[in-house]
Amino acid sequence: MNPIRVNENRLWDSHMLMAEIGALPKGGSCRLALGADDKLGRDLFVDWCRDAGCGIRIDQMGNIFARRPGIDDSLPPVSTGSHLDTQPHGGKFDGIYGVLAGLEVIRTLNDHDIETRAPLEVIVWTNEEGARFSPPLAGSSVFSHRLPLEQLHGSKTTDGTTVLEDLKTIGYFGEDISCTNHNLACFIECHIEQGPILERSEQQIGVVTLIQGARAFKVTVTGVDSHAGTTPLQLRKDALLGAAKMVVRLNEIGLSEDEATRITVGRFDIQPNSTSTIPGGVQFHIDSRHPELTVLKKLEACFREDLAAIAEEAGLGVTIEPFLSIPPTPFDPEVIETVRQVTENLGYPHRKMLSGAGHDAMNMASITPSGMIFVPCEGGISHNEAESALPEDLAAGANVLLHSLLKLSGTVI
Amino acid sequence: MNPIRVNENRLWDSHMLMAEIGALPKGGSCRLALGADDKLGRDLFVDWCRDAGCGIRIDQMGNIFARRPGIDDSLPPVSTGSHLDTQPHGGKFDGIYGVLAGLEVIRTLNDHDIETRAPLEVIVWTNEEGARFSPPLAGSSVFSHRLPLEQLHGSKTTDGTTVLEDLKTIGYFGEDISCTNHNLACFIECHIEQGPILERSEQQIGVVTLIQGARAFKVTVTGVDSHAGTTPLQLRKDALLGAAKMVVRLNEIGLSEDEATRITVGRFDIQPNSTSTIPGGVQFHIDSRHPELTVLKKLEACFREDLAAIAEEAGLGVTIEPFLSIPPTPFDPEVIETVRQVTENLGYPHRKMLSGAGHDAMNMASITPSGMIFVPCEGGISHNEAESALPEDLAAGANVLLHSLLKLSGTVI
Repeated sequence: MNPIRVNENRLWDSHMLMAEIGALPKGGSCRLALGADDKLGRDLFVDWCRDAGCGIRIDQMGNIFARRPGIDDSLPPVSTGSHLDTQPHGGKFDGIYGVLAGLEVIRTLNDHDIETRAPLEVIVWTNEEGARFSPPLAGSSVFSHRLPLEQLHGSKTTDGTTVLEDLKTIGYFGEDISCTNHNLACFIECHIEQGPILERSEQQIGVVTLIQGARAFKVTVTGVDSHAGTTPLQLRKDALLGAAKMVVRLNEIGLSEDEATRITVGRFDIQPNSTSTIPGGVQFHIDSRHPELTVLKKLEACFREDLAAIAEEAGLGVTIEPFLSIPPTPFDPEVIETVRQVTENLGYPHRKMLSGAGHDAMNMASITPSGMIFVPCEGGISHNEAESALPEDLAAGANVLLHSLLKLSGTVI
Repeated sequence: MNPIRVNENRLWDSHMLMAEIGALPKGGSCRLALGADDKLGRDLFVDWCRDAGCGIRIDQMGNIFARRPGIDDSLPPVSTGSHLDTQPHGGKFDGIYGVLAGLEVIRTLNDHDIETRAPLEVIVWTNEEGARFSPPLAGSSVFSHRLPLEQLHGSKTTDGTTVLEDLKTIGYFGEDISCTNHNLACFIECHIEQGPILERSEQQIGVVTLIQGARAFKVTVTGVDSHAGTTPLQLRKDALLGAAKMVVRLNEIGLSEDEATRITVGRFDIQPNSTSTIPGGVQFHIDSRHPELTVLKKLEACFREDLAAIAEEAGLGVTIEPFLSIPPTPFDPEVIETVRQVTENLGYPHRKMLSGAGHDAMNMASITPSGMIFVPCEGGISHNEAESALPEDLAAGANVLLHSLLKLSGTVI
């Protein structure tokens, strides 16, 4: 017997309709969290879910829970979801796919008149991107008790409003429903990979085992401003030259570790930044990521030693201050194995892999058995209007989600 | 017989009085060209010159010529001078010293009732710094026919006015006197070194033989923006990493040439400059300087080849566009030799040296025999409120100026 399948065209059309809200000229979308277009995107999703027979609940952080009842509705729901907000120049798929794949699962179950044993919930988390207010992953952070609700309510948006004001303005402050874990059976998030690995290895499904750990540091290099024309090379304390050597060395350190290692300098500012003045100061950020905490610690020890040596040799000062530390988040072995088995049964080329980026599932893993399903995106490009994915890949991921949720809800079809 | 000497205390006091106009909290001054404080500085200088018996002429660029008549007043004047305008956070000496040393020479000649054979002129050039409007060296550029007067008159200041409006506003538009070379016998400019060479070599006087040539280039490095967490190191096109290797290589190229070589990257901007995004673009400026044009050309050929190779190896794009090219300016052999002999006769420790920075004397060298006299400044620091020089060094330079001008004016005392 062929397993049931989601409707590929309907799933694709839903993406295209959602992308019209906040549409950008180069094919992307802009729906900043709790802004006017985010409201319209939420409204469209809620309408679709109501049409599909779901009950809707909104909590005090504006997280949306679309619930399809189970045969035994007292059981904790199996859940899925992601986010509908975007980066300022966001694409059509980052986050949106995880939400619409969940909706497509419900629509497919309706098509086939299948009742699940446990109820099913599709969740829209508020402000995953963090583009309009901080921090990112806000809704799932409060839900998983990582951040207090009051702190988030008081956060200022880039428009000068508070989050609580905006929640009320757009009608997504669910006054009576506290934002706390209401005992979910599990959480699975579908997402585009946002990297090149699936595409390059010609796999259709990534069975995500872990979100890698991340540590970030602010480095300050201090030299002496002086005149480019009058100061001999041998007498300079050129902070840019020192920082450039550090950037090169950081890459060498990364390459000397295993393939999973990521070291990036993405932010880099020099002073006084004038053509004819030798730069007296540089600040830059190191973003280091790895699936193993021990390797992250080893990387830090290694670059602390090497950067200090480069600075000393050049007569420069250097300070290194950590400002972000997220430990690696392994997903639940049972969820991983369920996703893997389902993918294999459906016949999709697949591989186990880790997530290089953070996702709401990272928060969920601390309160319920969780996992993720990745599908390829073109060139690994994301946070960009050019973000692109194939209808058949999106459908493949949604089929894996469908059968994983069926299995985890204890439903036999 | 002891040669006559300038009055060290009077010279120092003049600097301190001038520095009170536009005084800054950390000991510097701000008198932006043709602004309100520049007017006050000019007024003070003009008052001092009139008190010293000079005639004052202002030309259509606001250049000030304070003239002490000669025995044969039909002879072309021997001239000296510099500028009174400053950087926004300028010091007490850059430019000002060259003007006040000239005034001190006149006062000293008055003290000793010495008449010079040729007349003597102390010149204040308008807008040497270029901080309030472009280009720098404006007054001497028009005077030496390098730039048309009309172009400068139409230049917009940072306050939105035009130069011509400001000249009239502050009362320094000399309507009847065209800004052209009125046949000077020679021009000698005293200046603080703005570099560390005299201080380090424990010399009091720099006999400047040449202003080195300068070439500047805008380099654009193009890679691909991508996610710091998801993109393996081996698959990146990291424009910052490539640009960092270029900065290191540029320094190596400079060190492989002779000691006179200057290569600086002073301006450096990356995109999108976000912690978790691999930078897809970098723009930076190369400032290269050397006394010999052939070496400047060789440096350019060398870094063009090496930067292209670094870009190619990293899969990056690179373009290099020149935006400034000033050939080396040698000073007049007779003026240089006069300054050297006078310095030796006065017994000051001295060396021949080149100027790493541009000065009004660079323009003057194209129309009249010219030279420069450098004195040490503390730590080589300039364009900075911390700019500092010793009274005895300033007096030494003014004594060299005094006796050089006497000699060049054909005066025997």
